[in-house]
Amino acid sequence: MKFIDLIEKKKQGYTHSQEEIDFIVKSLMNGAAYDYQVSAWLMAVYFKGMTDNETACFTEALAKSGKTIDFGELKGMIVDKHSTGGVGDKVTITLIPLLASAGIPVAKIADKGLGHCAGTVDKLEAIPGFNTNLEPEKIVSQVKDINAVIASQAKDIAPADKKLYVLRNTSATADSEALLASSIVSKKIASGADNIIIDVKYGAGAFMKTPEDAVLLSKRIVKIGKILNKSITAVVTSMEEPLGRAVGNTLEVIEAVEFLKGNITAGDLAELTYAFASIILMQLRYYDNETEVRNYLKGLIESGQALNKFKELIKIQGGDADVIENYDKFSLPAYKIECESKKSGYIQNINASRIAKALSSLGASRDSAFGEIDYSTGVYLNKKSGEFVDKGEILYTIYSNDEESTREAQRFCDEAFSINESRPAHNNLIYEIIKTNEDDDV
Amino acid sequence: MKFIDLIEKKKQGYTHSQEEIDFIVKSLMNGAAYDYQVSAWLMAVYFKGMTDNETACFTEALAKSGKTIDFGELKGMIVDKHSTGGVGDKVTITLIPLLASAGIPVAKIADKGLGHCAGTVDKLEAIPGFNTNLEPEKIVSQVKDINAVIASQAKDIAPADKKLYVLRNTSATADSEALLASSIVSKKIASGADNIIIDVKYGAGAFMKTPEDAVLLSKRIVKIGKILNKSITAVVTSMEEPLGRAVGNTLEVIEAVEFLKGNITAGDLAELTYAFASIILMQLRYYDNETEVRNYLKGLIESGQALNKFKELIKIQGGDADVIENYDKFSLPAYKIECESKKSGYIQNINASRIAKALSSLGASRDSAFGEIDYSTGVYLNKKSGEFVDKGEILYTIYSNDEESTREAQRFCDEAFSINESRPAHNNLIYEIIKTNEDDDV
Repeated sequence: MKFIDLIEKKKQGYTHSQEEIDFIVKSLMNGAAYDYQVSAWLMAVYFKGMTDNETACFTEALAKSGKTIDFGELKGMIVDKHSTGGVGDKVTITLIPLLASAGIPVAKIADKGLGHCAGTVDKLEAIPGFNTNLEPEKIVSQVKDINAVIASQAKDIAPADKKLYVLRNTSATADSEALLASSIVSKKIASGADNIIIDVKYGAGAFMKTPEDAVLLSKRIVKIGKILNKSITAVVTSMEEPLGRAVGNTLEVIEAVEFLKGNITAGDLAELTYAFASIILMQLRYYDNETEVRNYLKGLIESGQALNKFKELIKIQGGDADVIENYDKFSLPAYKIECESKKSGYIQNINASRIAKALSSLGASRDSAFGEIDYSTGVYLNKKSGEFVDKGEILYTIYSNDEESTREAQRFCDEAFSINESRPAHNNLIYEIIKTNEDDDV
Repeated sequence: MKFIDLIEKKKQGYTHSQEEIDFIVKSLMNGAAYDYQVSAWLMAVYFKGMTDNETACFTEALAKSGKTIDFGELKGMIVDKHSTGGVGDKVTITLIPLLASAGIPVAKIADKGLGHCAGTVDKLEAIPGFNTNLEPEKIVSQVKDINAVIASQAKDIAPADKKLYVLRNTSATADSEALLASSIVSKKIASGADNIIIDVKYGAGAFMKTPEDAVLLSKRIVKIGKILNKSITAVVTSMEEPLGRAVGNTLEVIEAVEFLKGNITAGDLAELTYAFASIILMQLRYYDNETEVRNYLKGLIESGQALNKFKELIKIQGGDADVIENYDKFSLPAYKIECESKKSGYIQNINASRIAKALSSLGASRDSAFGEIDYSTGVYLNKKSGEFVDKGEILYTIYSNDEESTREAQRFCDEAFSINESRPAHNNLIYEIIKTNEDDDV
């Protein structure tokens, strides 16, 4: 088999066999294929696509390209949650303790954030001492101990996917739906997850710009899951505006803690956290009834069990759990600038992409994989869509360490808000939930 | 400007501006673009194509990526001929002396052969001492002296095309018509040609498999020429079977010499040589009348003027012109094996691709750019299509230096011939001639 013949085959729209897919991934890993051959193949895949079975084969080959985590007797039960990335998305930090406190073994294996979003791992590293760099053995034993772990993806988990990630992102092939789906699912499979919930975001602050594209990707993800015997639910959610009010690493952890303390009971963060937790509990057939499961989950918050689970998680991963009671234990920014609204009216929208640019100015996210992150900086949205603001009232607050970056961030934030007199229509946060239909042919 | 944005743009089917095209070629040359980005762009071009103007811009940018040859006062008059490559194609060797003896300045700047065909430069190097490795100054002065030069393309002529050539051939994008056309024409422009004839071959022994594809490529080539103010005629010719009877470097030079001596007056080699020479003479408006020009050309052969021009060319480039009168002065092969036909009948076809494989077995062509060529070996086709062969009569002759390779070559040759009782229909050698229509809008 020659790699160039496989490029030609895909270029002509043929479907690769299992052997060919294995050869492609092997050639990528052992250097038998040049990067410029792989990127040409990626572009051919962009144009000609892959069938569901082909994508599933590819996903499995990526998953098997390195180490895989084996949870032993917990096999079949492990829950993982993934988000395609959004601004202010701290749902992992609220969801994992909540599910773990319900007795569900959750192993969240995450990438570090790239580009405009900091990742969950980055956010947790805002907690002094918190270590996400765990060996597979530690990941497994910790889940057995406390039902929860949040680890950064070891470099030997799905290494073929990591190589492809770089190529896809530099060769303008990152938006191939088959490649995206296989990339997402391969990492989950390699890291031992069995019940997976994937938050597929669309909108200004997301990779997918339209809900239609997000639905297509979600359907593909769920189909691959079915073929590979993994239970996957994809939830298509809006990322037109940032999730929650806090954007920036420390600020987001604090907002998540506030949720776990029971101080945030409404709004998008609460809505998504409860929705995802319910889906998982019902997917695992612990509950059949939506109201029951919601009440049960609220009980876990109100009783402090979810918060205690988070404390336990912080401690076992070396972090200082005192931050939960004393937010001054986080590293603090030099400036806190409260910015007033220049006019009165209803917030129509807060453009997530603009807010992401503000975060980037403040050093709170990476522009490349090698950037250093300032955990202390960020933006707090004092007003969110649908709320009314008076002229002169505080619209948002900037946390910063530098005057110049503050001015830049402020400019981006001002651009982000659109305000006018009419009360905006309510937009649903959840656009569609896509899960395996047991009756589907695959 | 970022290279990835240009990949994205082409992927979405947009047309590149002049500035973008220049940036692409510059990035290729200075390493600002990674090879894997360039190959992804090439694949996007394969799928989305380029407009005529875009292709012309690209062609010019490739031509300007290195040195260009300036013929001074001969500017506007220089003729060059190019073939997309075929088995047994020695028309350059017959055509250049013929045109030069008609007083036309011909500068043939050729690539070394790659893959299954040896190039013209390889063939001429079968003449002891013949040097094609000429500096631009020498190329110019020689054309001024004797109207003719045949040189290998210096590495600093269109270097961007050379880099792309490797990428195209390893990333399965070599058959993009826009990329092919720009590659061919860029080299001609950089090497100072003004009146260009391009033999676009199709069939078993050619890169293009169908005449339709060859016509598409030809039209594109001619259109680029018009935009760039070059007079180009593309001739679409069949390469289903080898051209002439001799295949292999020394054997082909001898066949060309036999033509120049006036010993070959009919058949495909004579037909193409006269056709191309006539087109050039009429394109340059030396003759309006096909019969007149043919008679004039025949006169140049019969009077020995064309042969003398070839002798002059060999001498000035350091070769031993005595080979013309004494073929034993070539390096000779160890074996000459005359192979008999296993049945009687008409030759229906001689598959050029099979004959090319025989040549490869005999070491007469390269499989990679780094291969060494055996000039002495080859195959002589004692019978060609349309001719009748008796069982036991000699069908072809193998010239070889090695017994094992002889057996292999014999197997390929046997497979190449298809023979049966019925007289085959005559196939036209020239499928279509495509030249600039002065009235065309471009």
